[in-house]
Amino acid sequence: MARVVVEVMPKAEILDPQGQAIVGALSRLGFAGVSDVRQGKRFELEIDGSVEDAELEKIAEGLLANTVIEDWAVRRIDVEA
Amino acid sequence: MARVVVEVMPKAEILDPQGQAIVGALSRLGFAGVSDVRQGKRFELEIDGSVEDAELEKIAEGLLANTVIEDWAVRRIDVEA
Repeated sequence: MARVVVEVMPKAEILDPQGQAIVGALSRLGFAGVSDVRQGKRFELEIDGSVEDAELEKIAEGLLANTVIEDWAVRRIDVEA
Repeated sequence: MARVVVEVMPKAEILDPQGQAIVGALSRLGFAGVSDVRQGKRFELEIDGSVEDAELEKIAEGLLANTVIEDWAVRRIDVEA
């Protein structure tokens, strides 16, 4: 068993209204110093050893991200067994 | 300017129907070997140097996560300037 993290974030050139709402809320609530927030998604996948990187990239690109507006990254992480 | 990542994931004991839907879709689409998926959120914050860790934890715990059902983690990352 291994764990894989897929991070999906809105592309830099895409407006992120959720993130902008958070920036506004932080400022109203008195948290200064946060100039920008972008909100994306994070997936944790439990996979068995047979799943290869190419397949993970296909899953991330084809299913978890909308590549028109989102960037994605896949990384394997160590799990304390 | 620094960048901070806040990761918010459903607690282990909480059902994650979105993640379960993805597991089902993967299997229907022929991707074998993925036994579990959990879906959470990922926030990227641009902060200036004055924002301290305690304040970031307050933001994550109080605003970005629902601590009844979600765990959160804050980490500062290096940005290529």
